[in-house]
Formats: sequence, structure tokens, C-alpha cells
Amino acid sequence: MYGRYTQDLGTFAKDEAARLRLQEGDTPRPRRPSELLEYTQGRCGPCRVCALQCQRFLISKVGEDWVFLILLGLVMALVSWAMDFAIATCLQAQKWMYGGLDTNVLLQYMAWVTYPTVLITFSAGFTQILAPQAVGSGIPEMKTILRGVVLKEYLTLKTFVAKVIGLTCALGSGMPLGKEGPFVHIASMCAALLSRFLSLFGGFYENEARNIEMLAAACAVGVGCCFAAPIGGVLFSIEVTSTFFAVRNYWRGFFAATFSAFIFRVLAVWNKDEETITALFKTRFRLDFPFDLQELPAFAVIGIASGFGGALFVYLNRKIVQFMRRQKTINRFLMKKRLLFPALVTLIISTLTFPPGFGQFMAGQLTQKDTLVTLFDNQTWAKQGISDEFEYLGILEAWHHPRSNVFITLIVFILMKFWMSALATTIPVPCGAFMPVFVIGAAFGRLVGESMAAWFPDGIHTDSNIYRIVPGGYAVVGAAALSGAVTHTVSTAVIVFELTGQISHILPVMIAVILANAVAQSLQPSLYDSIIRIKKLPYLPELGWGHHEKYNVRVEDIMVRDIRYVTLNCKYRDLQQVLHSTKMKNLPLVESAESMILLGSIERAQVGALLSSQLSPQRRLLTLRQKALSEDGHRLSDSSIRFQISTETSSGTPARPAFRKPLKPALKRVPSSPADSPPAGSADHTGIALKSLFCANAATEPTEAQGTAYHKAKRVRISIVEEMILGDKMTPAEIVEWEEQQLDQLVDFSSAKIDPAPFQLVEHTSLHKTHTIFSLLGLDHAFVTSIGRLVGMVSLKELRKAIEGSLTGKGVKVRPPLASFRDSTASTTEADTTALRQLWDRHQHHHMPREAGPGGDDDDDTPKGQ
Amino acid sequence: MYGRYTQDLGTFAKDEAARLRLQEGDTPRPRRPSELLEYTQGRCGPCRVCALQCQRFLISKVGEDWVFLILLGLVMALVSWAMDFAIATCLQAQKWMYGGLDTNVLLQYMAWVTYPTVLITFSAGFTQILAPQAVGSGIPEMKTILRGVVLKEYLTLKTFVAKVIGLTCALGSGMPLGKEGPFVHIASMCAALLSRFLSLFGGFYENEARNIEMLAAACAVGVGCCFAAPIGGVLFSIEVTSTFFAVRNYWRGFFAATFSAFIFRVLAVWNKDEETITALFKTRFRLDFPFDLQELPAFAVIGIASGFGGALFVYLNRKIVQFMRRQKTINRFLMKKRLLFPALVTLIISTLTFPPGFGQFMAGQLTQKDTLVTLFDNQTWAKQGISDEFEYLGILEAWHHPRSNVFITLIVFILMKFWMSALATTIPVPCGAFMPVFVIGAAFGRLVGESMAAWFPDGIHTDSNIYRIVPGGYAVVGAAALSGAVTHTVSTAVIVFELTGQISHILPVMIAVILANAVAQSLQPSLYDSIIRIKKLPYLPELGWGHHEKYNVRVEDIMVRDIRYVTLNCKYRDLQQVLHSTKMKNLPLVESAESMILLGSIERAQVGALLSSQLSPQRRLLTLRQKALSEDGHRLSDSSIRFQISTETSSGTPARPAFRKPLKPALKRVPSSPADSPPAGSADHTGIALKSLFCANAATEPTEAQGTAYHKAKRVRISIVEEMILGDKMTPAEIVEWEEQQLDQLVDFSSAKIDPAPFQLVEHTSLHKTHTIFSLLGLDHAFVTSIGRLVGMVSLKELRKAIEGSLTGKGVKVRPPLASFRDSTASTTEADTTALRQLWDRHQHHHMPREAGPGGDDDDDTPKGQ
Repeated sequence: MYGRYTQDLGTFAKDEAARLRLQEGDTPRPRRPSELLEYTQGRCGPCRVCALQCQRFLISKVGEDWVFLILLGLVMALVSWAMDFAIATCLQAQKWMYGGLDTNVLLQYMAWVTYPTVLITFSAGFTQILAPQAVGSGIPEMKTILRGVVLKEYLTLKTFVAKVIGLTCALGSGMPLGKEGPFVHIASMCAALLSRFLSLFGGFYENEARNIEMLAAACAVGVGCCFAAPIGGVLFSIEVTSTFFAVRNYWRGFFAATFSAFIFRVLAVWNKDEETITALFKTRFRLDFPFDLQELPAFAVIGIASGFGGALFVYLNRKIVQFMRRQKTINRFLMKKRLLFPALVTLIISTLTFPPGFGQFMAGQLTQKDTLVTLFDNQTWAKQGISDEFEYLGILEAWHHPRSNVFITLIVFILMKFWMSALATTIPVPCGAFMPVFVIGAAFGRLVGESMAAWFPDGIHTDSNIYRIVPGGYAVVGAAALSGAVTHTVSTAVIVFELTGQISHILPVMIAVILANAVAQSLQPSLYDSIIRIKKLPYLPELGWGHHEKYNVRVEDIMVRDIRYVTLNCKYRDLQQVLHSTKMKNLPLVESAESMILLGSIERAQVGALLSSQLSPQRRLLTLRQKALSEDGHRLSDSSIRFQISTETSSGTPARPAFRKPLKPALKRVPSSPADSPPAGSADHTGIALKSLFCANAATEPTEAQGTAYHKAKRVRISIVEEMILGDKMTPAEIVEWEEQQLDQLVDFSSAKIDPAPFQLVEHTSLHKTHTIFSLLGLDHAFVTSIGRLVGMVSLKELRKAIEGSLTGKGVKVRPPLASFRDSTASTTEADTTALRQLWDRHQHHHMPREAGPGGDDDDDTPKGQ
Repeated sequence: MYGRYTQDLGTFAKDEAARLRLQEGDTPRPRRPSELLEYTQGRCGPCRVCALQCQRFLISKVGEDWVFLILLGLVMALVSWAMDFAIATCLQAQKWMYGGLDTNVLLQYMAWVTYPTVLITFSAGFTQILAPQAVGSGIPEMKTILRGVVLKEYLTLKTFVAKVIGLTCALGSGMPLGKEGPFVHIASMCAALLSRFLSLFGGFYENEARNIEMLAAACAVGVGCCFAAPIGGVLFSIEVTSTFFAVRNYWRGFFAATFSAFIFRVLAVWNKDEETITALFKTRFRLDFPFDLQELPAFAVIGIASGFGGALFVYLNRKIVQFMRRQKTINRFLMKKRLLFPALVTLIISTLTFPPGFGQFMAGQLTQKDTLVTLFDNQTWAKQGISDEFEYLGILEAWHHPRSNVFITLIVFILMKFWMSALATTIPVPCGAFMPVFVIGAAFGRLVGESMAAWFPDGIHTDSNIYRIVPGGYAVVGAAALSGAVTHTVSTAVIVFELTGQISHILPVMIAVILANAVAQSLQPSLYDSIIRIKKLPYLPELGWGHHEKYNVRVEDIMVRDIRYVTLNCKYRDLQQVLHSTKMKNLPLVESAESMILLGSIERAQVGALLSSQLSPQRRLLTLRQKALSEDGHRLSDSSIRFQISTETSSGTPARPAFRKPLKPALKRVPSSPADSPPAGSADHTGIALKSLFCANAATEPTEAQGTAYHKAKRVRISIVEEMILGDKMTPAEIVEWEEQQLDQLVDFSSAKIDPAPFQLVEHTSLHKTHTIFSLLGLDHAFVTSIGRLVGMVSLKELRKAIEGSLTGKGVKVRPPLASFRDSTASTTEADTTALRQLWDRHQHHHMPREAGPGGDDDDDTPKGQ
């Protein structure tokens, strides 16, 4: 009775849904003419109609993407500008306080130190309370999100507010912190929020693929409006967040970043800061002879040194974090007093930069922006070694110390800022490391440039004209090289061109950046990858430069062969055993243990849900009730529940189109009512025979830990059962008996979500190709199949081990057992197919009648000679 | 007997191969110490050992990629420089001839016209004879090759020589032709040849994946050393050749392109052309106030107009080609006299540019390079409308005509060059269209700039300082915009910065380029895609900007449902029928017609080979001989041949590692000897029953065309058979009978190459995702499966139709029957799984006992309401 009712309800719901959908499909069409009619009745009717049609045409042609990107650019430009304004105000306030108290050094020191400490502590506390996800750069998280991993709470309004306010305070403190990483995160959150906001007005803003595209564009906008560098922004964001980049998303990034950079600079003009749109850190190097060919070795030296420096920075940064975590006493103390660490670090750094104190030897009074402006200055500070000859005007004065020369100031600056930056970026506030590193690189470049200028006072050029060396150009080169080395990007070159508004040093910059990258990449991961590893986010290491072993390692060398699986005609008991014996998040579903044909994959949670619904007290109560009602009620109740589940879930989904060719179901389903469960049909007797084999196999496997877990789970189950016992008439013994009965039933997969096409690889796929596919499609795991049969599985973990093992020599060194035997020049495809043939051969061999020859004793699976 | 022998041979071969491999694996290890020993015995032994180890360390660390990239950069820089030198010499020779004959206008004209005609004709003839593949740009072909399609003869030495010499002659003629497309092709050929050359010294130069990576880098080198623009080169090559770009290949391009650009410019310094490394077309615009905000609308106008212009250029170019092809009389005539068309076009163009003639109104005497230099000049030509005020010095004089003003000259230049370039690029010589378009764009920008300068003689800026308008800046913007519109790239912006050495106009350039792209992309395909379509190369159209229907179209809407397939236990006759009834290049292999579980895919050629080997005369002869030898020989011969094939092919491949878990074969193979072919086992009787269904299905299908093809094929077979009849003792009737017997045997797939994991999609995959996957993995087709069952197939053709149908409204407009019903906001993954559940539900529904309710009459496959 119940069964019939629910089934009728199901068909009713389906029809109803189809009817509603039809209505939905029809209604918009008649609405349009009436709308137009409304307009035509007005005074300037035709104009309006025309405008409306134009608008529709535009939206249909250019789509809502444009609207979205323009809005995103606009919002980000405004946010960026407002933050810059607030930060500048904060910094001015500090300067004003410091300047106003110049009568008393102690008071001056107090003001100089307290101000940033308060700001940083507030920033750390604020983000900690509102959204701890806002801490740090955000680029590692964005890289993970763009890989397809869902990180909770990373793109919410709360995090947005926390990041914006926290970052403003952190940068306003004058600590060596950057803003480009957080800006990438802010822009992404902005895009996510804007998407959600615009979806209120309807449209396609909820599509997942589209959102990923938009997030990629948002990352570009973040960097673009941070540096007013649209091209560099797009390229930088591509390099740090993507492994494979869709060229069709290119224009989105360019469009939004350009618009954003444009508005950002227009706001500066409008605010009368500038006369027109120009670069942020405009340089005025001479155009006619920017550098001599013979200066190139010096640029190369900058590049190589920056490579080592960048690797050292990443190493230092990681070691500081690890030290804090490992020292348990420190860790426990800091955990209790979360705000102490930021305050302490700020105190130390601001004490050291106090201008009348040690700060006088390292241009401590300059803000980050002023430092960059002075470093990119096109004058030579140390002419012919006599620093007095040159008048240090305005802010340049900071670099001039009466009792030391500019070289010592620069060296002290570089050394101090280096560890300060590495330390400051570990503070739990929203902050990046790009700008501090950029400044250090600029200072290093300047140092080399000044040395060159002192070495060759009249330049190197031998012709009639004297072209003096431009140390500012070296500073530009150094900045690009060091930031490129730390982030493992080449696009910092483009960013410096856009920042300085000059491209004349293109070749030195490119040479230095490439060399820096080459050195840094062979020593350390990038800063962002380093953070990803520290934070234990899911990642896939890059394939290194020029390592060829990866072409020779194959999936079969790294795959896990011994995997648990779920068969189509298994019992609930088998599910239970599989759950207890493995921790895989996705279980393969195979046709039978004999054929091992992969049909799909099923999530662990789904298997758990299947089990728990089978053993649920509700179900037991129902059984009891049915039993009470009639003798054959048992059968009905079972089928009714199944129907209920299936109709509930299917009514909300779109109807599927009719098959033209009515295919027979692929999966020979055993009739699911428990009375029929011991099937007598010929189709299934092999399955039963092998299921016993599988069950035996699984039963011998569980270790003691698993066993206890099993018992624990059982105990929990029983305790739940005991709670339900008030409305239940079964004794615990009866319950256990009932459960055992239930476990012996065949599994009904109809209510489970099954991924019908999990990604499959072949045993002979190379590591290189596997890496490509995993990063292209953002996979987490892939099944290895051979002609439909499941033979193994590869997950991110195995892949990571294999790559790192073969690259760094640390960790698990996977020495593929057969890689050395392989003919390296043989093309993969051919080997694939011939090996397949071998497999076929073996199959056939097994099935051949044995009377063919006396060679029947060599039919073990391992070929000889191994 | 024979069977045993071959099997023994097989195992022997296997053991032998394994032994050899073991030896190979062992020998290199002992060799190394002896090598070292040899060196240590020398005088400066330790040094040498150290150097050797260093070298090994370097190679193992940085790999051979570096060596390769440096060599590639070097070679390409030399090629580029040598070609530039040769072209400059050619152009100078023309100028010299023209200048020397200034006494007689007729002689002058003859010289002016004959010279380019001869050169172009030679170029066309030379490439036609040596390698017709060298004709044209080469970028479309490279795009196709990088997609994974193998184009024959496109990367050979012959083509290289033809392209280099042909291009030099073509450019030396002074026609409006470009060199950037051919350079991409030349660099790719250079990389391919270098790969082959270096593989002589061993190493990994033969790996396919690596070669694709290197080709991508080579494309970047091509553009990079052509314009001395490494960054723009890399970006441009990515945009025009890739759909998805691997960021890990980024550095390769940058490294090689930078090195190449560096060498290219160093050669110029070394040749005393320049004092130091600077930009190719260096501009000297003022830095402090490059442009006013209020000039931006003018830049936007340039962008939009360039967009329309670019689309028109592509359209014109295509129409010219199509006109030439369609007009049969012209076509036939030109086919006979292949050199007439180039000569004629050259004659017309050079006549029109003859400086004393019409050329005086369009600066006809300037070469492409001189034109660009003058257009990027930072002086204003038309000050306050009085052109006399300005002295046209040097080459600028060409733009000055005493009886007209500079505006008319510019307009005439733009109009004439526009059609000339579109026409000239259709000449069958190696040539590109980038440079001509770039020049036209620059002229257009100059025109707008001069107009603005005439309109606002003192600039727009309202403050105290007078900042005059810089028309040269407009020229730069126009050049970037028009070339961006024609090629659909944004990176032309970067190229102009690198070409001019100034980045001050970044925002105007970006705005214009993006607008131009937006307009052009919505009107026409890019020039390269247009050529791809004309040449009918396999391609996949891009998804347009902001079209959302693609998110709502699913694979099930576009897939082909009615596909032919091969079952595992089919007969040769079925294979024959499948071959005759379809033209698919890859046939799916399914378990059985009932289960439809996809096991793999088999190439059409393989199926053909299976059939022909089964029906081969050799086999027939063997049968005869066997029959003569013994009565039961028939059975033995059959199995022996099978063994022979399998051992032959498997002996050369590496041995497979042992399975830890001895899995039973997935594929229940029917014993393959023909005597057992009607199987009596319970496992197979369903298969037989359904096979008959399948065969009936296939038999009713063939159309008449297929029927005739079938008979034709049969006739050919019989004729071949008749040739063999001399050594044969069978009569034709007997042969036919024998063949019929053979066709009734079960197919033995062991000797066929089967792709064991063809790419699979699910029915609910969106068009957007499908496009992504196809372009990511370079697929040609994909099978659509549902829980292991094959339900359809999607090939490039369907995808192309679907995209173009939904984008342009032309062609087959695929209106997905259910797209409008779908809830657009539902996430795809959820819909996937719920729809799957629905499917499961239906399966279960079919198998449920009917007594459940009176709703049994709604079990047809089409849900109601449709």
C-alpha cells in the first residue's frame, strides 16, 4: 500500500515538475512583446524600443561578463585607492608624531615604537577574531582554490572585511610588509561576493566553471591595481596561481586589470596627486644609451646573487615558521598569548629602525615607497668615491650619513631588511612579501650599481661620448631579479617596466630575472609553494627543469595496486569491511571481483550513508510495525522505503532525454527485495562464488587497530540503539540479530551518488603525462585501468612522492624497478599498445587448452628473467 | 607440432630479450669508474675528474634543455640577422637602381617594377619546387601541430631552406609582406632539426612530449628574435598557437627568446649599426606628460575603428582566396601558370607605388622599416594646419607632397596599403601579414593624432603648462590596435613597447588593443583561424566572449548516439559489416551488445588489418597445406598462427611487472579455436542471443552507397585472390566458400592494437567543459559513457558544429532540446549525480516486480511532459 502511494507521488511530482518547467520555458516569450508595447505607448517610444533592443543586443553579444569585469575593476580600484589613502594617512601620522616630538628622544622613541605596535596588534587581533583565514598572503590559498579544491570561508564577506582592515593597519604601521598577495585575495573575494550579489538579479553567475574563470581574472586585477601594472599583473597572477592557463581567459584578466589600473590612476589625478596618468615609480633614465654591452656581466651577477638570496629568503621564512611550531614551550606560550608575538616582532623591528638610533645607518625613516623612489633615482650617489660632491636633496638625505658612506648604509640596509622582512612576514596579519623583497632587491642592485659607478667613473664605453653608468638602472634590475627569485616568476620583469614607466633596460632585466629564477628554482620552492607545504594544503609539485627521468617513470611504477573496492552485487557486510579496511575517500565500484570492470566511483561518505540507512532504527521500527501488521509485510516495507528515497531525489532534477536506442541496462541488477536475495539465477552464481573469496580476503586483512575501530563503531551503534529502545520493543540481542540479518542483504546502490566516469589512466602512462593530466584537470586521484579492468589507483600522494623522490633525492626515492631496462627512445604509444597485446596474450594463454605443449609450467604471472 | 614450436620460440625470445636487457642495465655501471680511472692516470687528473663531475652535475641539474635552448636562440638570431642583412641589401639595390636611373622615367619605372617581380616570381617558383609547405605564414600550421596533429613535411630541412630563401626574396622585393609568421615556422623547423641533430649524440631528444614543449619555445623564439621583443614574443606566440598553456614551459620561451633577442641585437652592435643595445624602432616621446586624460576618447576611437578594420582585413583576405578558388576559369588558368599570379600582383602593386607616379601620394619610396620610423616620429607634421611651418627632413620628406597636405597622403596610404596588403598576403610565397597590418595601423593612428594636433594646437591640458599632443603616440596605439585586431591578440601591446622602447603610453595602448579585440573577435575569426579554415586543417573554434548558452548545452545534446561498435566476441563478418557501415576512424570495443560496457577503442586500420589477415591468401595456402598433411590440422594451424603473431610482437617490449594480486582476466574470452565457436557454456548464451540482434540491426542499416562499397571491396578482394591463384589449388568458388567460413569465425583481437583507456565523458558534461577537455588534451573524439556503458560519441565535428551553431547562428544551429528547461542555477555536479540516480532508478524500475502498483504502464523510456 505504502509502496504504491509513494510511487504515485513520485510520478505525480515528475509530471508536475515537467509541467512547471514547460510553463517556465513558455512564459518569457510572450512577455517580451508586451514589454515593448509598454514602451511604444510612451512619448519617445521608438527611441526607447531601439535603446532596449540595443541593450539586449549588447548583452547578448558581449554578455554579462563585461558588466561583471567592469564592476570588479571599478570596485577593486576604489578599494585599492581608499586603502592607499588610509595607509598614507597612517604613515603621515607616524611621521608627524615623530617630527612633533623632536625635543625629547625618549618620547620620540616611544611614539615611533608604540604606534606600529598598536596597529599591528590591532590588526592581528582583529583578523584573529573576525576571520583567521585572512591571515597571510592569500596567494597559496588562491592557487589551491583555482586547482579546484574548495577551501571553506576563504571567499566570504567576513574574510574580506578582516583582510581589508587588517591589511590597512598592518601596512600603516610601516613594517616591511607587502600588499600584493593580500590584494590577490581581496580581489578574489570581491569577485566571489560580486558574483553572489549579481546572481540576485538572475543570470549565470552561479556556474562553477564560470566562477573559476572569474577568479582567475580577479587575481590579475588584484596585482594589476596594486601596482597599476595591468600586463605584469595578468602575467604574475598566471604564473603564481596556475599550472595550465586557458588562453581564452586571457582577455578577461587584461580587460579587468587595465580598467582597474586605469581607474586607480585616474583617482590619483582626480585627487590632484598627479597631473596625468603615469607610472607609480617613474624613472627618468636616459634613453639614448641606457647601458653598455660590457655592463651585462654585472647584471648577470645581480641575477645569480639574487637567485641565491631569494632561495635563502624562502628558506629563512620557512625555518622561522617551523621553529615557532616545533619549540613546544614557545608554541604553547604563543598559543595562549596570541598577540604577544606580533607585538614583540614589531617592537624589535621598529626599535632597530628608529632613525636617531640604529636607523640612521639604514635609512630607517623612509617609508617603503620613499625607499623605492630614492633607490630608483637616476643620479649617482657616489661619484668617484667622494660622496661629498653630491648633494643629497630631500628624501635622499636619509641615505647619507655624515660618518659613513653610502655603501655601508646600503649594506646595512640590505642585511637588516632581509631578516626583518623574513621575520615580519610570519606575523599572523594579512601581509605579503613581494614588496619588501622588491625593496631589498632594489637596494642590492643599487649597491652593485654604485660600486660599478665608483669603479668606472666615466663609464665603460670606449668611444668619444662619455656615458656614465646609471646605478638606478641596476636598482631596477635588482628589484626584478630578487622578487622574481622569491616568487619563481619571470613576469616581475614586466612589473618593473610598468612600475618605472621605462623599458629601456629590458635586456638586463630579462637576463637577471631568468638567471635568478634558474638558481632559485633549483634550490628552493617558491615562497608560495613553501607556504602551501607549511599549511599542508593539497598541492602537486612542479616538474623540475630539465629532469628527464620523469619521462621514463610510468604509472605502473608508482600506483597503489592493493586497493579496496566495492562490487555491484556485494552485501552490506562487505561495505562495512571495506570501510574499516581503507581510508580512501573514493572507492571504486567494479562489476564483480572476478571481472574487476570499473563502473564508477563512490564516495566514502556515500557508503557510510548506505550502511547507516540500512541499519537505522527507523528502519528497524518500520520492520517491527510491518511484522505486526502482516506476515508478508516485511517485503512491502523494504521496497516502499526504497521508492521513497528514489522519488524524493529525482523529482527536482531535469528530465533526461529519451534514448533513441533503448539500451539494456549495463548492470545486471539482482532483484532487490530481501526475500529473493539468495539468487538462484544462472547469471549470478559466479558472482556469489567469488564474493566469498573477496570476503575471505577482506576478513583476513583487518589489522588490530582496524579491529578495535570496528568494535568501537559497533559499540557506538549499540549505544544509539539503546537510546532508541524506549520506543522499541526489541531486546539488544534481537537488535544484533536483526542487524546481522540486514548486513547479509545485498546492497541497493540506487540511492547512492556514483560518479559514473572517474578519471582513468593506463599503466604505461608516463609520470610526465600523469602530472600534466592531474594538474590540467585538477584531479585528486585517478584509477588505473587496463581494458576496462581496475588494476590500481594513483592519488596526489603517490604522484607527489614520485616527483619529489625523483627530483630532490629526499623523501621516498621511488626507483622504478623497470625504468632502467626501458628503451628510452621508444615512443610511449607503441610501448603502450604492444604491452597491451602482451596482456591479451597472457589472457589468451590462460584460457588456451593446455594440451598445446609442455610449456604449461611457465604460466605463473611473473615472466621469467625478472 | 608447429604450435609448440612457435610457443617455445616465443618464450625463448622473451628470455633472450630479458637477458639482453639485464646486460644493458648492468654494463653502464662498471664503465663509469673505468672512465674516471683513465682520467686520473693523466697529468692533471684530479682537475679533469672534477671538471667531468661538474659537467655531469650541471647536466643532471640543468639538463640538456639549456644547451638546446641556447643553441636554438643562437641559431635563430644568426638566421634572423643574416636574413635582415640580405633583405636590407636587396632593398638597397633596388633603391640604388632606381636612383641611378633618374635620367629616364621609363627606365626608372622598368627597374622599379621588374626587380620585385623577378624576386617574387623566383620566390614563388623556388618554394613551389622545393617545398610547397613553406608557402604562407606557418602560424596556422604550427597551431595545428601544437594541438597534436601531425602535419607531414612541415618541419623538414627542405622546407626550412625553402622558407628561408623564399622569405628573403619576398621581403627583399619591398612588397607589403611580413616576416613574423614565417619566423615562427622557421624557428620551429630549426628546433625540430636541432632536436634531430642532437639526438645523434644520444639523450632524450626523441621524446614526443618534450618535442612539443620545445616547439612551443621555438615559436616564442621566432617572434622574439624577429622583433627583438622577448616578452611580447613569448606572449604573442602563446596567444596565437595555444589554447591551454603550460606555465612550466613559460621559462623555456623566455629564456630562448631573451637569448635570441640579445644575440640579435648584439650582432647589430658588432656590425657597428648601433652603439649599444636599444629598441628596433626607438621613440623619443616626452616622459613627463605623455598624454592627457582627455585624449583617451580619441584612443578609444582608434581601438574601435581598428577592430572594424581588422575584421575587414581578415574578411577581405579570405574573400580574395575564395574568389581565386571558386572562379574555375581563373583557377584552371592559374593552376597551369602558377607563377603568373604572383608576378601579376607584384606588377600591379609596384606600379602603384612607383614614386614619380601614384606613389608620390602615398610615400611609395619608403621601405616598410622607414615608413614605421617616420610614423613613430615624435614631431608633429601638421602644426596648426599649416604644413609649411614644419621642415620635412631626411626620409620624412616622402610624406610631404607640395600639392597636397599630409592628411591626404596618409588617407591614400592607408586605403591603398590596406587592399595591397590583403592581396599581397595571398601570393603563394612565404610571407606574413603582421608587419603590413602594423604599418597600416601606425598610419591610421598617425592620421588621428595629426587631426587631434590640428584640432587642439596647444594640447587639451588646461593648466599653466602647455603640453602639445604627440601624434607619434597615436601611431604607436594604432599599430598595436590594428595588429591586435587582425591576430586577436592582446600581446601586440607588449610588442610595441619593446619595439619602441617606451612604455609611457601603456594605458592608451591597452585600452585600444582591448577594444579592437572586442570588436574584431565578435565579427570575424582571427587571420590565423581564417587560414586554418581555408586550408581545412583540423581545428576547434574558440568559445566566444561572454556567451552563456555554452554552459547550458550538454554532451547528450550534441553527441552521436547511433554509433557502430565492435564486440569482444563478434565474428569477422561483423567486423566487415561495421567497416562498411561507418567511416569512424576509431571504433569502440564493447564487452557485448547487451552490456555495452566500453573496454577500449580500436583503430579502423587495425580492424581492416584483422580482416585482411584472416582472409589472406597466405593463410589460405597454409590451410590447404595443413589439410593435406592431416585431417585435424585445420585446428592446429589456426592456433599456431595466432601464437606466431603474438610472440613476434611481444618479444621487443619490456616485460611487465608481476601483479601482486593475481587478478582473473576481465574479459571472458571464448575459446578461440573455431571448432568450439558455438559455445554451450552458460556464461555466453545471452551474448549469442543478443549478437543475433546486433547483426540483424547492422544488416538492416547499410544504405545503398554502403552496399555498393561493400560489393566493390569484395570484387577487389576477389581480384587479388585471382592473382594469387597461380600458386593456389582452389577454385574461385572454393575460395569464396573458404572465405565465408573464415568470416564466421570469432575474431581474435590479440594481434590488434587496442587503446585500453579512450577518453570518456558523461552525458551531463557541459559543452564548455567538453571544449576545455578537448583542447586541453588535444582530443579528436571522446566516447560518452554512463556507468561503464557506451551511450554515444562526440568528435571534433560535433563539437565544432555545436559551438559554431550556438555562436554565429550560421551553419547547423544546435538547439539543445532540453537546455531551456534546465535550471540554470543548479550546479553541474549535483545535476550529474541526481540524474545518475534517476538512471539507476529507472534500471531498478525495469527490474522491479511489476506487482508493486498499477503505475506499471508508465515504464516507457521517455518521461512524460516532453
